[in-house]
Amino acid sequence: MSNDTTRIAMIGYAFMGAAHSQAWRNVHRFFDLGTRPEMAVVVGRDAAKVDAAADRFGWAESATDWRDVIAREDIDVVDICTPGDTHAEIAIAALAAGKHVLCEKPLANTVAEAEEMAAAAATAQGRGVRSMVGFSYRRVPAIALMQRLIAEGAVGDIRHVRGQYLQDWITDPEFPLVWRLRKEIAGSGALGDIGAHVLDMAQFVTGQRIAGVAAQTETFVRRRPLLEGDGALGAATAGGGGEMGEVTVDDAAVLLARTDGGALGTFEASRFATGRKNHIVLEVNGSAGSLEFSFEDMNGLRYYDAAAGDRAGFTRIDVTEPTHPYVGAWWPAGHGLGYEHTFVNQAADFLEAIATGADPTPSFADGAALQRLLAAVEESASHDARWTAVL
Amino acid sequence: MSNDTTRIAMIGYAFMGAAHSQAWRNVHRFFDLGTRPEMAVVVGRDAAKVDAAADRFGWAESATDWRDVIAREDIDVVDICTPGDTHAEIAIAALAAGKHVLCEKPLANTVAEAEEMAAAAATAQGRGVRSMVGFSYRRVPAIALMQRLIAEGAVGDIRHVRGQYLQDWITDPEFPLVWRLRKEIAGSGALGDIGAHVLDMAQFVTGQRIAGVAAQTETFVRRRPLLEGDGALGAATAGGGGEMGEVTVDDAAVLLARTDGGALGTFEASRFATGRKNHIVLEVNGSAGSLEFSFEDMNGLRYYDAAAGDRAGFTRIDVTEPTHPYVGAWWPAGHGLGYEHTFVNQAADFLEAIATGADPTPSFADGAALQRLLAAVEESASHDARWTAVL
Amino acid sequence: MSNDTTRIAMIGYAFMGAAHSQAWRNVHRFFDLGTRPEMAVVVGRDAAKVDAAADRFGWAESATDWRDVIAREDIDVVDICTPGDTHAEIAIAALAAGKHVLCEKPLANTVAEAEEMAAAAATAQGRGVRSMVGFSYRRVPAIALMQRLIAEGAVGDIRHVRGQYLQDWITDPEFPLVWRLRKEIAGSGALGDIGAHVLDMAQFVTGQRIAGVAAQTETFVRRRPLLEGDGALGAATAGGGGEMGEVTVDDAAVLLARTDGGALGTFEASRFATGRKNHIVLEVNGSAGSLEFSFEDMNGLRYYDAAAGDRAGFTRIDVTEPTHPYVGAWWPAGHGLGYEHTFVNQAADFLEAIATGADPTPSFADGAALQRLLAAVEESASHDARWTAVL
Amino acid sequence: MSNDTTRIAMIGYAFMGAAHSQAWRNVHRFFDLGTRPEMAVVVGRDAAKVDAAADRFGWAESATDWRDVIAREDIDVVDICTPGDTHAEIAIAALAAGKHVLCEKPLANTVAEAEEMAAAAATAQGRGVRSMVGFSYRRVPAIALMQRLIAEGAVGDIRHVRGQYLQDWITDPEFPLVWRLRKEIAGSGALGDIGAHVLDMAQFVTGQRIAGVAAQTETFVRRRPLLEGDGALGAATAGGGGEMGEVTVDDAAVLLARTDGGALGTFEASRFATGRKNHIVLEVNGSAGSLEFSFEDMNGLRYYDAAAGDRAGFTRIDVTEPTHPYVGAWWPAGHGLGYEHTFVNQAADFLEAIATGADPTPSFADGAALQRLLAAVEESASHDARWTAVL
Repeated sequence: MSNDTTRIAMIGYAFMGAAHSQAWRNVHRFFDLGTRPEMAVVVGRDAAKVDAAADRFGWAESATDWRDVIAREDIDVVDICTPGDTHAEIAIAALAAGKHVLCEKPLANTVAEAEEMAAAAATAQGRGVRSMVGFSYRRVPAIALMQRLIAEGAVGDIRHVRGQYLQDWITDPEFPLVWRLRKEIAGSGALGDIGAHVLDMAQFVTGQRIAGVAAQTETFVRRRPLLEGDGALGAATAGGGGEMGEVTVDDAAVLLARTDGGALGTFEASRFATGRKNHIVLEVNGSAGSLEFSFEDMNGLRYYDAAAGDRAGFTRIDVTEPTHPYVGAWWPAGHGLGYEHTFVNQAADFLEAIATGADPTPSFADGAALQRLLAAVEESASHDARWTAVL
Repeated sequence: MSNDTTRIAMIGYAFMGAAHSQAWRNVHRFFDLGTRPEMAVVVGRDAAKVDAAADRFGWAESATDWRDVIAREDIDVVDICTPGDTHAEIAIAALAAGKHVLCEKPLANTVAEAEEMAAAAATAQGRGVRSMVGFSYRRVPAIALMQRLIAEGAVGDIRHVRGQYLQDWITDPEFPLVWRLRKEIAGSGALGDIGAHVLDMAQFVTGQRIAGVAAQTETFVRRRPLLEGDGALGAATAGGGGEMGEVTVDDAAVLLARTDGGALGTFEASRFATGRKNHIVLEVNGSAGSLEFSFEDMNGLRYYDAAAGDRAGFTRIDVTEPTHPYVGAWWPAGHGLGYEHTFVNQAADFLEAIATGADPTPSFADGAALQRLLAAVEESASHDARWTAVL
Repeated sequence: MSNDTTRIAMIGYAFMGAAHSQAWRNVHRFFDLGTRPEMAVVVGRDAAKVDAAADRFGWAESATDWRDVIAREDIDVVDICTPGDTHAEIAIAALAAGKHVLCEKPLANTVAEAEEMAAAAATAQGRGVRSMVGFSYRRVPAIALMQRLIAEGAVGDIRHVRGQYLQDWITDPEFPLVWRLRKEIAGSGALGDIGAHVLDMAQFVTGQRIAGVAAQTETFVRRRPLLEGDGALGAATAGGGGEMGEVTVDDAAVLLARTDGGALGTFEASRFATGRKNHIVLEVNGSAGSLEFSFEDMNGLRYYDAAAGDRAGFTRIDVTEPTHPYVGAWWPAGHGLGYEHTFVNQAADFLEAIATGADPTPSFADGAALQRLLAAVEESASHDARWTAVL
Repeated sequence: MSNDTTRIAMIGYAFMGAAHSQAWRNVHRFFDLGTRPEMAVVVGRDAAKVDAAADRFGWAESATDWRDVIAREDIDVVDICTPGDTHAEIAIAALAAGKHVLCEKPLANTVAEAEEMAAAAATAQGRGVRSMVGFSYRRVPAIALMQRLIAEGAVGDIRHVRGQYLQDWITDPEFPLVWRLRKEIAGSGALGDIGAHVLDMAQFVTGQRIAGVAAQTETFVRRRPLLEGDGALGAATAGGGGEMGEVTVDDAAVLLARTDGGALGTFEASRFATGRKNHIVLEVNGSAGSLEFSFEDMNGLRYYDAAAGDRAGFTRIDVTEPTHPYVGAWWPAGHGLGYEHTFVNQAADFLEAIATGADPTPSFADGAALQRLLAAVEESASHDARWTAVL
């Protein structure tokens, strides 16, 4: 293993911070990279809490001012795991300081911010600084295989793309008004949180861009109990004072789409699909075959080969062979991976890009394009599903 | 068993005629009805072919002029299995002649025709004449159970309804221009042929009406080889002369919808979903639970009860118990039914309504309402997915 | 269609009688046979009941003495649907009278009877009389396809064969002592009723014979309420007098096996597998691939092709294409069949054999061989699972 | 988090060593334990290789003599990940030296060794020394939930237990003679390697002991190419010299069983089940319900509640809720775990037992009992499946 190290500073330490910490802690134990990460410092506003997080997750230090951390000479990477309203400021500053940046998705809360970030990334790229958006589901081995098979022509001309990302964690009207339900912090609701993932996955696997959309959004529960204290997902409990606040994001978003390759798209993101915990389904139908992925069976991929004659049918490819993307780094065939491994695989790709001087994907430009797609969805939804081109 | 008989005349003898014949032949062997059907006469334009069909399917007589048959005193029921362009004329004449009418879906090719038919049915109803549209999938036991469970409150307030009806029988561009691909005969393509089913199922199980839609339709293959001779599905072969004709219906239709109960709907019908042979999926998410049906597992229904605590999950109800709808007439638990049984169950409901003097559902008025929904979909699709109210 | 008719007499009219009636009523409507069946007479001991059955199922006549019926000149086929204790006497008499015989499985209650029947069938065969045992699950299209694929070499050398036939209809200790729980009538319990099916299926699809077994049987509930009146499955209710009787058959049988081809076999039949209604699973693993069938998905068959490289996985072949066994007679692709269709397919094979002068399978000799296998299982189980050769 | 540390020495560093390293590296990041592990030293025979492994897996030191390491004062735990032939010597020495011992399964290669180890563990226990066998699949959350539900009475009286552990990694006859195929090192083949797991799982979830067995074993490929160099699973390549050696273990083992609670058991372990990569299925049928687990869906558990009336069916419990065993330490609902997490959960249980002074399970006595069961299976198999009591 290389003894060269890449020193990481992580901003934010809630759900995504825990997942990213797991990635930095383990990635070099499985992947042969040109470098190994060092968990240098974790940053948060509350000194006691961030210190506890450093201890819990295994960061060498904690800090409360991200500006100080970015200014440090000994930091190579800034990993942004905060809510979307802070992404632009931190990322632009970090890029300006010459730090490689991994930024959680969605890239920003507005198109304007996202485009500023993409411009900053392009400038920084000229100086050898790398940047990437954390669309971690691209790193599910089965999704990476889906992309590869489509690129190899396994489905032919694409006719249909359909994606769902369904959850149910706020179906209870007494669930409190956590930050993810407040537009000023989260940017949007189901759309940006989970819809962004499945839209990115759809564009990634097909290699096509969504060119136009007609959408509807809905907020089923419009007022919720105010939260006392920290509103991180999972730790949410109502304040008890009985005060209510307004939900300012969508609970669900549904849309029709057309890709630049002529395919028809249908997408759905919801936090009100009772019984669906983290239900991601992506299906592509083409002239020569079909592919179908479901996250509940994340180690499998279903492939239909139209040329298979009377033995045709959907084959559940067991995506646990060493020849499958990412899998060679892990366990023997049949010993499947879990949710967290997407983050380890992502960290491997990012670190390898840094080590080899390549530009990782999805880039900030990709992230800004996705942000324009989300904006088009919201624009359409606010005009009765009017057809809206994605700029 | 009752010795009272109900004498049936069936118009048309292709795919639907075969299915309906199977129903009339067997229904009284399983269901205790107040009457038993007699397969009196089958009607078609080609004397030799209709005669062969009578022999094949077991009709006592064949005839070539449906007007003559409708005029016969000894006919009680007219069963219309022809393409949609002929439904209105036949049904209205039959109702006027005092015959009970079972008409294949969609009720008609246009809203105007459908409304004329509904009016005729309403008039005839006053004279004790029964009419029903053949939305046979309502008679899948699992779909009837889904309706019952929702009516009992099993899912609470409905948030999402999603339906798919996907096939792939015309993905090959060399598949010829059969009648189902010609608007003047079929009315529409995937929309009316299969989309109509899943839209009807959605409204049936939820008890809600779709109030507005935004839709897109697509014809992926716009010119196909002209057909020589009979164009019935399954028997299709290209004419060989190399002449091409225009496909004038949709290959696929996708839509967003709102119900009058406030639910968000997403629907898809396609004949280009490679690998999907007769793939019907219907899912309802509510505040208290969810239900999911897939025709590939037609003897099952998946139910999620949000109140089940840490034993919660989707239960695959094995819909083969005698307490389940229709099942008591059939085989012991676990000895499942197939596609054709939906028609037998449908015939049982229709005959029982006649025998007991009740009005069967779905009525012609229901069929006309569905036709207005299809028209709204087409209207929206022809205006770039513009939001369109269902009248 | 042929106008030549084959006149059927059916003995017995309970569950199997209903299924066979459905077959005779419909088979010629779907299959092109050299003959068409005529439902001439149904036979039972109770005149009123058998008359009602004739009316219900559509038999032209009813009769109470099977000997009289067998003596009739105008009967071509005797179809035996009675419990196993009567099979030998009826079948041997019918064969002697020159009637073609279709006999429900298991062929008999003892090896001695079965061998007498096989000898009678061999003698009759010389006079052009056909005989067949009703192992109806061979006629599931997916099972017939499984046999074909294995014969084509799709799995290579067979290493493992495993089969389960699980039900749960007598888990309740209050379920009464129906005839199927009495050895003198039924011969054995789960073993002969359902185990016989899955053992026959295993030998059929592999083309190999089971050469030896080690087995255990168990009767979990040894005393049950006596039944008042008819004990046909499904109609069972306890007599109410509170009297109890002894269960004299097995509730479950499990066995290890070796085939003459060197494969290891594991089999299980039980009426105590709670939640399993009619759960038949059959799997074959070979050097080149595997095949797996489950009756709950009776229109599918799972195939693993070891040569498929990094696209390998179990393919769910949708066994609804016209090129698949029996399917061409039925509905378009994706419009699946149900339990009862196995009987229709079986009737087609039997009638076609009669019409073409071929010998149908499984023959009475096959049935006797299966009976010897069942006897070996019981012999082994009565000696602490001692290894027992199948004679 | 506790700052108290538990210093670990791991012996062996192949497949199991990688999995255990992952556990020690991460366990305290997710579980609140009374201690945190310190990866002190890894031990192997080849200095260069073990040094590389230390670097790869993150152990502070490496060493080549396990006796020296056991003698060190600063080591608290000895974790044995070597092949079975070395377990007894290492474990007994470590226990004598007062080290807590975690030993990979099966506990030993012979009953005699296993009993010596159990005796040593009992002696050591009196001095507060803890010991545990690494039956890691007990730590799949769904298996732990299965155990809990059965203990709560969810299935009532147990009638059937069936288990399969199927793999296919040596179906190719050219696969070389790795150590797992040599009896002197591995003890047995499929039986001890994977059969041991599913037999332990069966006894664990039911709370019953297997009292007697009838078994068959088979070695399908009896000679294989000799291996050059290290024979660890996954790294295997044939030596190239063309020399062949004898396979001295079973490729497959199948058995019937009776538990002390009166249940019938059927079990199967094979490395020749083509297409089955790591296929573990465990099903329990009881008087009140059934439970079914499949490792391919390791985050789910299927439960049938016989009391659910006409809503009955197998419920796929999504075992990703914080109320489920182990899950509270991990990710939000729906964000499932993978294979490796069983080792992290196991490490948590072991460390917590040490910290709280409790005895972890499965104990060495449990491991010895399992070894007696494996010996009974081999004994039966070597005598034509003769019924053999488990001592």
